[in-house]
Amino acid sequence: MSKNTNLVEARRLRAIGLLAGGVIGGGWAARFVLNGLDVKLYDPAPGAVERVQETLASARRAFRRLTWIPLPAEGSLTVVNSVADAVRDVDLVQESAPERLDIKQELLAAASRETRSETLICSSTSGLKPSLLAAGMDHPERFLVAHPFNPVYLLPLVELCGAQSTAPEMLTRAAEIFQSVGMHPLVVRKEVDGFIANRLQEAMWREALWLVHDDLATVQEVDDAVRYSFGLRRAIIGPFRVGGGGKGMRHFMEKWGPQLKGPWSKLTDVPDLTDTFLNKLAEQSDARTENLSGSELERQRDDCFVAVLQGLRSQRYGAGETLARWEQGLRDRIPQPVSGSGPLLMPTLELPSDWVDYNGHITENRYLQLCGIATDNLLTCVGIDAQYRSKLGSYYTVETHLSHLGELHAGDRVQVLTQVLRADDKRLHLFHVLSREGDDKPAATGEQMLVHVMSGSGRSGAVQGDVRERLLELARSHAELPRPERAGASIGLR
Amino acid sequence: MSKNTNLVEARRLRAIGLLAGGVIGGGWAARFVLNGLDVKLYDPAPGAVERVQETLASARRAFRRLTWIPLPAEGSLTVVNSVADAVRDVDLVQESAPERLDIKQELLAAASRETRSETLICSSTSGLKPSLLAAGMDHPERFLVAHPFNPVYLLPLVELCGAQSTAPEMLTRAAEIFQSVGMHPLVVRKEVDGFIANRLQEAMWREALWLVHDDLATVQEVDDAVRYSFGLRRAIIGPFRVGGGGKGMRHFMEKWGPQLKGPWSKLTDVPDLTDTFLNKLAEQSDARTENLSGSELERQRDDCFVAVLQGLRSQRYGAGETLARWEQGLRDRIPQPVSGSGPLLMPTLELPSDWVDYNGHITENRYLQLCGIATDNLLTCVGIDAQYRSKLGSYYTVETHLSHLGELHAGDRVQVLTQVLRADDKRLHLFHVLSREGDDKPAATGEQMLVHVMSGSGRSGAVQGDVRERLLELARSHAELPRPERAGASIGLR
Repeated sequence: MSKNTNLVEARRLRAIGLLAGGVIGGGWAARFVLNGLDVKLYDPAPGAVERVQETLASARRAFRRLTWIPLPAEGSLTVVNSVADAVRDVDLVQESAPERLDIKQELLAAASRETRSETLICSSTSGLKPSLLAAGMDHPERFLVAHPFNPVYLLPLVELCGAQSTAPEMLTRAAEIFQSVGMHPLVVRKEVDGFIANRLQEAMWREALWLVHDDLATVQEVDDAVRYSFGLRRAIIGPFRVGGGGKGMRHFMEKWGPQLKGPWSKLTDVPDLTDTFLNKLAEQSDARTENLSGSELERQRDDCFVAVLQGLRSQRYGAGETLARWEQGLRDRIPQPVSGSGPLLMPTLELPSDWVDYNGHITENRYLQLCGIATDNLLTCVGIDAQYRSKLGSYYTVETHLSHLGELHAGDRVQVLTQVLRADDKRLHLFHVLSREGDDKPAATGEQMLVHVMSGSGRSGAVQGDVRERLLELARSHAELPRPERAGASIGLR
Repeated sequence: MSKNTNLVEARRLRAIGLLAGGVIGGGWAARFVLNGLDVKLYDPAPGAVERVQETLASARRAFRRLTWIPLPAEGSLTVVNSVADAVRDVDLVQESAPERLDIKQELLAAASRETRSETLICSSTSGLKPSLLAAGMDHPERFLVAHPFNPVYLLPLVELCGAQSTAPEMLTRAAEIFQSVGMHPLVVRKEVDGFIANRLQEAMWREALWLVHDDLATVQEVDDAVRYSFGLRRAIIGPFRVGGGGKGMRHFMEKWGPQLKGPWSKLTDVPDLTDTFLNKLAEQSDARTENLSGSELERQRDDCFVAVLQGLRSQRYGAGETLARWEQGLRDRIPQPVSGSGPLLMPTLELPSDWVDYNGHITENRYLQLCGIATDNLLTCVGIDAQYRSKLGSYYTVETHLSHLGELHAGDRVQVLTQVLRADDKRLHLFHVLSREGDDKPAATGEQMLVHVMSGSGRSGAVQGDVRERLLELARSHAELPRPERAGASIGLR
């Protein structure tokens, strides 16, 4: 599916109806709302709405760290009092009720009676077969399973699995919708309990329980054995070793196949969940986290997910590629040019914790990165996009003068005001002022000279067409602003 | 164990003896050699030494991306012709022969006959019980299993498991050695086939084989289901959900325990490795990688590992914390001050691929990062270490002037020459010249003014003691160098 289809898709969507909040429903709400879609939520459980709001707050925090690209205006979150109100006039209904067949069947049947004829109806079930779930529905052809992973707002996979009755085009349409909100849809071609990912996860989980049950390892030892070793592989290459170490899978199986007959895993059984065993599990698990609250743990987990996703994005690999594609979609949706008479204001950024150096404040090169983001924002506003860059040209920085006037810290919400000091056909002279939101005193200033370089030749050349007009217009309007005191300063002369 | 023990440990080690190269033995060779330890390798198989050299080259490349801290001088890799020559006068023998009990027993018995009385003897076995392996040894009290994960030079876990005969202090000593080369030792307290990690990995692997065997999913679909979903969790939190979602493990088990009785996983059996099944596996696996050679795949995998490890380092979490601790050890081992009459030369760095922006060259803020690394290097050379920073003070950058004179690209080997333009009690005025190794023309220059800030108060104050003397001496010697043409330049005046 092309990028453009994504955007058309995302723009065409009106609203999403969510049946049940909870961990999964709340995660769905966050993903949709932060991608600019309106959400109607039905969940009669006490405190459900508050928990969804908390999840939304966690997701906002995670998204601010995840990407620099400005997000679209948030969609609305409306709490409604009936299934009918949640599913009316929406494009997609997503049910995330507890994992009980009767509850899910009833909700899905009610939803299918009340929706319009083109509305997709999906269930978040972790393992129930779609044909069972569809049993009581009026329009089973519009139903399928869309199984996400917690936290839904960060993990990209959504397993799509149709029932016997599902119309094939519904799978295509669902894939388009989920892709437009940054997910990686995977069509599960056969109905099977647990679909694909949970069957694999479950196998390891059973073995982990046995290890603790038999006192071969503690909960902590099991977790450490995984996260310091093959757990790192799983984020990258899944259980099948890519190419079997370069010599092909046949070679790999010849070497390791015989191990399968060995006594390594204890797979034939499940330990009885006796009180003694459950107490042991609970004690070993909970002891590790007694100093951290649930929301602190969640924040730590989200920060690690963000860091791993950003790491994979730098390699354009796996879940990192999904992230990069979503960001490209966001970039293409940034509103076109800003006029206004004051300096250009970049959307506020919250500084992530990994920008801190050993002195405890933000590393110096991150100040320049903030200037770079502000410059990119300005260039986007005057119309320099991927097409302009590939066909016509781009601006390269030739000089920068950074002055540190205060300190920025992790968690600070930072604004950058950008003034065009001068622009001609080739050169663009900018002055950035970095400050904490609501703070009069700047934390730093950055003066930059950029040169327009032609695509292909790598030589400087004149800026083209509408971009030129908008840029010169912006420079004319900024020429009336006072010239910043520090513009033109050099080091060591004061 | 404290950091200092680490260092003493690493300095005291003379050499490592490796029995057998291969994927695992080569990985050990790389980890030890790059951590400055001499390695003696015995592997009579044809081409073994060349393969170890290739692994060492891959590891060098990965380490250059993994850390900015200069590595110690490489240890030597000596190929020897007998077990006796490999194990004589070494501190640790590491056996990594194929997974056959008879071969391993024979090698280990030979090693134990030929080593000195204090030498540790370890086996890399993936799953054989240590008491079986120790059966024929003269000194079984010095033997234990030290099971690493591929690639050994990047994945931190090493499972340590003693035989009945193993002396307890040998486990402690092994843990110290492996920690000193950046690993995370995990003591497996009971002898069990497959230890901990491989039992868990094996359970998932069996289930993955069933999914492909039963045509429920292809190899690609299984891998995608993992790496886009819970595979990302495994790099962070292992199979036990931390704290059960904030409500404790008991709550978690009450919710999810009943699923264990469900029909999700197919655990009771192993598919027959018939020719048909093996062909299907090989076809589906190898088709995905036909455009990439084995070493290209390995590079892609290593780059992803490095990115994930660096992401986790930014959060000081799990394997990222192991990396940070290893780097601190490296930092403390950087040789003390450089005199010399020319500008200070920072160790050459190879620019990683994730430093590239959309124009295809290195992002502007990375040039400043290079200046920052050079400044840190200079400060380390004059004796500013963690202790000085915590007790006395630190230098903060107040101004930077960057000039871009050429372009740097991913893979470029870059040198930074740093000249002290002036230093007094509080101020430090530096000029950095960034260039490609062997290139006369600089790619960029960076002029910086730093101020010495006192610990605690956050106010500027005089640099202290020996650091002051070394810095002023360096400034005096650099005062005789020609003043760089671009020093003192400002933007827009030329």
